[in-house]
Amino acid sequence: MNVTVNHRTRHYRTVTFDGRRNAVLLIDQRLLPHQFRIAAQRDYRATARAIREMVVRGAGAIGATAAYGLAQAARAFRGDDLERYTRHVEKAFETLKSARPTAVDPVNAMNGVRRAMRAGRTVREQQVLALEAAGQFAEEDVRHGEAIGRHGARLIGQNARILTHCNAGWLAFVDVGSATAPLYAAQKAGRKFHVFCDETRPRSQGATLTAWELAQQNISHQIIADNAAGHLMQRGEIDLVIVGSDRTLGRTGEVANKIGTYTKAVLAHRHGIPFYVAIPLSTIDWEMRSGRDIPIEERGESEVLGAWGAKGRSAKMIYVRVANPGSRARNPGFDVTPPELITGIITPVGIIRPKDLWRSRRRLGYGGEREMEKKGTCVERKAI
Amino acid sequence: MNVTVNHRTRHYRTVTFDGRRNAVLLIDQRLLPHQFRIAAQRDYRATARAIREMVVRGAGAIGATAAYGLAQAARAFRGDDLERYTRHVEKAFETLKSARPTAVDPVNAMNGVRRAMRAGRTVREQQVLALEAAGQFAEEDVRHGEAIGRHGARLIGQNARILTHCNAGWLAFVDVGSATAPLYAAQKAGRKFHVFCDETRPRSQGATLTAWELAQQNISHQIIADNAAGHLMQRGEIDLVIVGSDRTLGRTGEVANKIGTYTKAVLAHRHGIPFYVAIPLSTIDWEMRSGRDIPIEERGESEVLGAWGAKGRSAKMIYVRVANPGSRARNPGFDVTPPELITGIITPVGIIRPKDLWRSRRRLGYGGEREMEKKGTCVERKAI
Repeated sequence: MNVTVNHRTRHYRTVTFDGRRNAVLLIDQRLLPHQFRIAAQRDYRATARAIREMVVRGAGAIGATAAYGLAQAARAFRGDDLERYTRHVEKAFETLKSARPTAVDPVNAMNGVRRAMRAGRTVREQQVLALEAAGQFAEEDVRHGEAIGRHGARLIGQNARILTHCNAGWLAFVDVGSATAPLYAAQKAGRKFHVFCDETRPRSQGATLTAWELAQQNISHQIIADNAAGHLMQRGEIDLVIVGSDRTLGRTGEVANKIGTYTKAVLAHRHGIPFYVAIPLSTIDWEMRSGRDIPIEERGESEVLGAWGAKGRSAKMIYVRVANPGSRARNPGFDVTPPELITGIITPVGIIRPKDLWRSRRRLGYGGEREMEKKGTCVERKAI
Repeated sequence: MNVTVNHRTRHYRTVTFDGRRNAVLLIDQRLLPHQFRIAAQRDYRATARAIREMVVRGAGAIGATAAYGLAQAARAFRGDDLERYTRHVEKAFETLKSARPTAVDPVNAMNGVRRAMRAGRTVREQQVLALEAAGQFAEEDVRHGEAIGRHGARLIGQNARILTHCNAGWLAFVDVGSATAPLYAAQKAGRKFHVFCDETRPRSQGATLTAWELAQQNISHQIIADNAAGHLMQRGEIDLVIVGSDRTLGRTGEVANKIGTYTKAVLAHRHGIPFYVAIPLSTIDWEMRSGRDIPIEERGESEVLGAWGAKGRSAKMIYVRVANPGSRARNPGFDVTPPELITGIITPVGIIRPKDLWRSRRRLGYGGEREMEKKGTCVERKAI
């Protein structure tokens, strides 16, 4: 993606690898949108710390970070004792895994790296294969985004006004993203359109990350309070909604995503506005049989009771208490949208009605009985 | 209302008058919820400044403040030259009116004071009548709130879970409030219930003012992000919604209120949850024939792009920029909810279906042809 920093225009990815320095390079997302900085993690412990401390967030992005971190650990090994090398890599695996214990992506991504690596017969061969596999994981993340973009771009007519929620953009992935992919593809095709970014309280990823991304891409956009979308729909100012997903049930077509997504789907339905969910294949959960079973994380109260921002001309982020001191908060992090409110699911293999996911399961990579066995290679993605 | 400040429990009103000092006493709402301070305005110019600088906000509250301010100006006059006295009062009228030029309440309230005052034949008599009329205005505000409470309290069953939006509480009025009035009445009747306060971005009046009010009243409550109400309704955790209104159309039953109200009404309707609007009679607009004609104020972008709060242990309010610098915002301040989404309007004379307002217009104080003439005494209220 083209990011303009200090009057230079360069193409950045959220996660990359510097082979010469054996370093994982990450856009430090804690500093956005007030500062843009590439943070180089020079050994796997630093990479694990970067995941833990939210330098990088978003499912595809932390998957790729962990995959590169494992390759980084492998490449740092000196000597040719394969047994000691293997113990060293296993230790790094555990360290990287424990950095985000509830996420499945780093584990799945690292399983892929480890499996590919073992085809090598020497330490040197395994080191080369590890980096190759991590790179492949990252490339597949980008290709999925591009394919979502190709299929989704045709939904975006000239002068369309599109509502987005939260951030399922290239910052949540290695590049391109899911919900933003159709926007970038439509822009490449020369279409003009306007995006309303839901602020997405309490963590404000729409106001910070999505708005930042769209600004870097020179896409016309405005931030709105989460309260405003209903009014804009009522006044005929929104033509289309595109959001991402943290988990989409292949058997029922239910979609779990950032809190507030369900509300936007209900509003869009009332106003006859198309509502699309963009996902890589790894977001589909083929096992779960009901959206009621999706665990809804209750997050910390401080997110609701205050806000993070920068004061005056400073770029330093500080937390301010907004709410009445002593009052408590409820903070469910996600909600579940039923299939009847969703016009279509934009996947890398095409746009599919949510009720048709199960019927299309072979095209969507469902392995049936083999699924459990394959699961180690299947990356489930959770975008924050 | 009982406000606990520095371990004392006292009953405060939003607006009161100190006859001995000839001062208008206001709860300084700019400092809430981080500081509680009563600000004494010692002459009418200070009172006008307090309105202008948002020390006091909320329709009923600024109406009463202006009424007391005019009486304060009258009482400050020395001498018995009735002509000079009248010129002095007129000057104060204009100063107080210009403090919030778009609001109709201060003007209507002051018209009432001026009219009552003119029955006096001497300066001294007029001074006494002016203060009496201002006091009457304030008392009527309180009585309306109490009547709303009596009618609304029966909607609140034992262990009810109630959603509110924005602040239409006693801080927006002289006392009691509109949307909060049924809560306070139900509490007096010994009922237990729980309130979810919508944060109400971008100005966060739910998280600051409503939560503060409810905490002072020892009412069980939690603040939620505006995004969370849909999820809570879906999970069966909300039984009832009560909101206020800035303008309710007597001819159509449409309700204009703080941005986000419409969204909550749509969600409540989908889930079969009763949705009520609580209003004093003065909020009813008998003239306007369509909700499309209600002007929707577009407010400043900075409200959406950042947040006001207090840092660390400090009680001083500061503004932080949250959003991507350079990104713009849309900030409609209000929205319009159609009557089919509203279960009932809680008025001081009873609960009325929105479609029945026109049929009930005599009971609701509609004067028909006489309305235009009477309008000077009719206080229209706009709660922020």
